[in-house]
Amino acid sequence: MRFASLDALRAACLHLLPGDEAAAAAVMRRQGGLTKPLGSLGRLEALVAWLAWWQGRAMPRLDRVEVLVFAGNHGVVAQSVSPYPAAVTAQMVANFAAGGAAINQLVRNAGAGLRVIGLALDTPTADLTLAPAMTEAEFLTAVAVGHDAVRPGTDLLCLGEMGIGNTTVAAALAAGLFGGDGADWAGRGTGVDDAGLDRKRRAVDAGLARHAAVLPDRLLAASHLGGRELAAILGAALAARRLGVPVLLDGFVCTAAAAPLALLAPGGLDHAMLAHVSAEAGHRRLAAALSMAPLLDLGMRLGEASGAALAVPLLRGALACHVGMASFDEAGVTDRA
Amino acid sequence: MRFASLDALRAACLHLLPGDEAAAAAVMRRQGGLTKPLGSLGRLEALVAWLAWWQGRAMPRLDRVEVLVFAGNHGVVAQSVSPYPAAVTAQMVANFAAGGAAINQLVRNAGAGLRVIGLALDTPTADLTLAPAMTEAEFLTAVAVGHDAVRPGTDLLCLGEMGIGNTTVAAALAAGLFGGDGADWAGRGTGVDDAGLDRKRRAVDAGLARHAAVLPDRLLAASHLGGRELAAILGAALAARRLGVPVLLDGFVCTAAAAPLALLAPGGLDHAMLAHVSAEAGHRRLAAALSMAPLLDLGMRLGEASGAALAVPLLRGALACHVGMASFDEAGVTDRA
Repeated sequence: MRFASLDALRAACLHLLPGDEAAAAAVMRRQGGLTKPLGSLGRLEALVAWLAWWQGRAMPRLDRVEVLVFAGNHGVVAQSVSPYPAAVTAQMVANFAAGGAAINQLVRNAGAGLRVIGLALDTPTADLTLAPAMTEAEFLTAVAVGHDAVRPGTDLLCLGEMGIGNTTVAAALAAGLFGGDGADWAGRGTGVDDAGLDRKRRAVDAGLARHAAVLPDRLLAASHLGGRELAAILGAALAARRLGVPVLLDGFVCTAAAAPLALLAPGGLDHAMLAHVSAEAGHRRLAAALSMAPLLDLGMRLGEASGAALAVPLLRGALACHVGMASFDEAGVTDRA
Repeated sequence: MRFASLDALRAACLHLLPGDEAAAAAVMRRQGGLTKPLGSLGRLEALVAWLAWWQGRAMPRLDRVEVLVFAGNHGVVAQSVSPYPAAVTAQMVANFAAGGAAINQLVRNAGAGLRVIGLALDTPTADLTLAPAMTEAEFLTAVAVGHDAVRPGTDLLCLGEMGIGNTTVAAALAAGLFGGDGADWAGRGTGVDDAGLDRKRRAVDAGLARHAAVLPDRLLAASHLGGRELAAILGAALAARRLGVPVLLDGFVCTAAAAPLALLAPGGLDHAMLAHVSAEAGHRRLAAALSMAPLLDLGMRLGEASGAALAVPLLRGALACHVGMASFDEAGVTDRA
């Protein structure tokens, strides 16, 4: 689905379905009768209710779990913000196709399917320190790619990305959306040294200064400071909401990419959960800004949807308890007085 | 293996194998060549090295994962420390056998095997506010049950427990081992109200006062303030160390049960990882006292090894990356300059 204009996209972001509160309530009722002290599975109980809420099913499913990884290249790499050359983006996409990357192993561990979608890898976005990263047309095309990638009937969608230079892009976008500057949001990404970190901060600050006038508009911020894979994640997160698909967000880049949804409409990211908090400096700050509580905190900072895929078995465990446990009556166990 | 005396058990706890540092180093070398920024899988990399260290294999395995749940009953329930009657311990053991409990679902999710071992459920320990919970013979028998339950060739062992009243017991033992009192260590367990929490605190304080003279001896603390399922966990944790089996500890009761190992010998619990931090009040404090960093923090407080089993897929994911990822050379990906 290609939105005809930023305004058409904005309208779609403002008219989001509220989910199925009754399905979530049914989950909590059932949980109350299972053979365990009330609430003793903690967040696992809430996770099942969250799946039910957004799937619109009192008994949610995780039969079709999909991992989508979007890849893009970035003009801002001209500012020497990464220790890796831009060619690595396409090389890693080939590695995904060959099954050799971390996400390939984690997708298998998750019992999920994987699709990797490269976006115009031969045509990097413009250098955001000098110009808008994308034209409106480029931005809307990337949003459409992400939107169309989400398949109806998916039970859970994990989103992730690959793109040399994109932690700088995400830092710029996060600063543009939430305030602060390069020192607040830029981190070491794939592992830059102190001088590289300083270059990242300066690139973010230069981008913020250049595009200051448009930043109050969340979608213009995303097109001027973002990147194609980030725009695709935004489109996929929007499509998931429209299709009743709960979403696991991965790390810093992925969360920054989806953040405009939360800022455009109250609860715009309620169908998305933060799978983990990354070791990338800005991610904890971003999670706090979005009031999102990550499921995992394991010092990962790889991207590729790796944290999202790793969290899938937690949801499977939560759902297995919900579906498979006996009630006090069924098991002949005495409930509390 | 039945230890002939507390001193024989103590001697075994003092002579622990150091594990295979070279195997762990081999893991970290291999990790350095895989197609990801150095260290970007965060704690997943350290987890694989930890498995290698204690399995003594440069390429660790998770083919045989076992979950052991020990169950016991406690005289201290006479102090009205639980909202559930003691009969629920045996009822839940029957529920485990029938497959209706949370742990049954989570074991399947983990790809693990489950054994549940009830220890003299018809003969509760003595009320620790009035007498030593166990005689030396009772304690050593329970330790032996746990020790013998660990099978050679196990790749990972998850430990857990079931026992109405045992969060009071664990609070007493934690206080006996690490200092503090009932107010520091007692929590709401399966869900006591304020009056019940007050009774738990007073029971802990009464136990500490009655057994103060023996508490400097860690094993006497475990026999006077503990319980049979806790003693079995201690025995299983010791056996695992002797057999080269890494251990995932579950919640507050399980961690308190294993804690004497860490206090008797430096590094005595280095082969054990805290699978999660429970919502039970004392667990975070206990984790800090043991300098153990939990893998998960999901507000669970069920016991049954539920948190340990839930964490198994994280280890499987970590190992899958280690085993299955391509190197930079293999994948034709450019490493950093």
